[in-house]
Amino acid sequence: MAKSKSIIGVDIGATFVKIGLVDAKGKILHKDSFATKKHKNRDKLLSEIVDRVDRLALGNRSNIAGVGVGVPGPVLFKKGIVYNLTNIKGWKRVPLKSILSKRLKGMPIVVDNDANCACLGEALWGAAKGYRDIVCITLGSGVGGGIMIDGRVYRGRNYSAAEIGHICIDRNGPRCNCGSNGCFETFGGNNYIVKEVVSRLNKGERSSVLELAGNKYTNITPKLLDKAARQGDKFSIKAWEKVGLNIGIGLAGIVNVLNPEIIVIGGGLSKAGEHLFGSIRETVKARAMDIFTKGLKIKRAKFIEDAGIVGAAALIRGRLQ
Amino acid sequence: MAKSKSIIGVDIGATFVKIGLVDAKGKILHKDSFATKKHKNRDKLLSEIVDRVDRLALGNRSNIAGVGVGVPGPVLFKKGIVYNLTNIKGWKRVPLKSILSKRLKGMPIVVDNDANCACLGEALWGAAKGYRDIVCITLGSGVGGGIMIDGRVYRGRNYSAAEIGHICIDRNGPRCNCGSNGCFETFGGNNYIVKEVVSRLNKGERSSVLELAGNKYTNITPKLLDKAARQGDKFSIKAWEKVGLNIGIGLAGIVNVLNPEIIVIGGGLSKAGEHLFGSIRETVKARAMDIFTKGLKIKRAKFIEDAGIVGAAALIRGRLQ
Repeated sequence: MAKSKSIIGVDIGATFVKIGLVDAKGKILHKDSFATKKHKNRDKLLSEIVDRVDRLALGNRSNIAGVGVGVPGPVLFKKGIVYNLTNIKGWKRVPLKSILSKRLKGMPIVVDNDANCACLGEALWGAAKGYRDIVCITLGSGVGGGIMIDGRVYRGRNYSAAEIGHICIDRNGPRCNCGSNGCFETFGGNNYIVKEVVSRLNKGERSSVLELAGNKYTNITPKLLDKAARQGDKFSIKAWEKVGLNIGIGLAGIVNVLNPEIIVIGGGLSKAGEHLFGSIRETVKARAMDIFTKGLKIKRAKFIEDAGIVGAAALIRGRLQ
Repeated sequence: MAKSKSIIGVDIGATFVKIGLVDAKGKILHKDSFATKKHKNRDKLLSEIVDRVDRLALGNRSNIAGVGVGVPGPVLFKKGIVYNLTNIKGWKRVPLKSILSKRLKGMPIVVDNDANCACLGEALWGAAKGYRDIVCITLGSGVGGGIMIDGRVYRGRNYSAAEIGHICIDRNGPRCNCGSNGCFETFGGNNYIVKEVVSRLNKGERSSVLELAGNKYTNITPKLLDKAARQGDKFSIKAWEKVGLNIGIGLAGIVNVLNPEIIVIGGGLSKAGEHLFGSIRETVKARAMDIFTKGLKIKRAKFIEDAGIVGAAALIRGRLQ
């Protein structure tokens, strides 16, 4: 492929399918999206994706270096088989790469797990540019993970490794969706932080976040909690510090095992301010071994809302040079 | 080097220095050892190692493919610099590879961390033969770890990765030697198991292990605890199951992140019977994600007492073909 050609990135999420035209430097030139649940079956969903890709290619597929596709959950990378997509009928072990290759003839197709995509996107064009040994976590409703070793995404034997959110940090901790207990994800995702805050307020603690939420518990979001923390609300600051502590404990283990150069933290929660990042950095420094923390960078991701599109597009580049 | 030549493996441990002549198939032809504390300073220790190596080479260095050296703790692998060896004066950032290369002219020297050596030894000649994505843990006074990815030892940015024993599995757990809390190592090493058993006996629980130990707490060892368990002592069986649970929790996290083909468990504690291994296997299966445990092997190491010598010798082979 010509290195200057644009790429199309497709991010098939549980809520939205996002599609974007990305230039050779990782800049989004145009983007588009539709609700995933608009289509109840697989073929209609894929047809809409194919249509929108063609629209972005302006009818000339040879203008495009390729189409990268990111999906949640495990992907058999080499064959481009997607294990399952919740909420979409008939989506079990779908050979997405070969289906799209037929329907988008002339365009190379690469499919991977969305957290791997996010890591590759940051490595090529974002916060991890210039680094080769990278750990990337995405703090959303869960905690996703991507690993690059010497400039390549690490996928493991089944091409689906790097489930960093599922390291246990509390053997007696609460049940995790994965079936285990006390996974890092159970203390670091969106759901956890809101639940924790509501439980503390219920116990009679006071915080300005409740006013910001119009005195309704159900209106409390990580965004409002960040706003309150930035305004100096001690309760909210403590809440972020606690999340940072848990994330830091999980990351310290990863640092001791993988010894990366840089950790990039993305996803919605990563927009929180220095209370979160300060606590993560402090905890990793205190808990990981000195030899590994010396020179280790911990940075916020460059791509948040667009991480899916940019990351999927990065798949077409595949790896660092 | 000729592939049929023998190799010399040197295992510099905290208690003993072990040296062995190993054939091209990993079989020890001759071995030798002396107490590490025999020499209080670095140069005398190195002189004795050089003498013994020469003795094993029968005065003909060209008969030997090379000398592999394993040491505890971090090693800057490419340069062969050893960070520190406890109990030996003047041992801080010692360029062991270049010192030995000068003193053993004509023999290639490779130096690495002993847990990495153990992993390589199992991969070339032991329980992990035929596998390429391997995690190896050594259960001794601590918990050491080695990782192979696609047939090569994974060393990370500082060449000292794979400190698997220092993943936190209990964020509120006891202090670990590394400075963190609740590391996997604090629940899996020799010291832990004996302490735990004594504490339970102190609380009035009964076990035949105490009789086996001549009714002296200080005589209780993992070996006796294994003997008691094999004889059906419920207390001892429960003790091994609990250790297995903790080891399994730590390993499940590693499995979710690295997705290996096989886990090899070595070190003194691994000689314990099926009560330990059954519990480890069950826990990993219950706690790691299904996609990763399908087909995953968990095996006992082939090399226990000789793991240091054989592993160090394996360094001269370097990696799988």
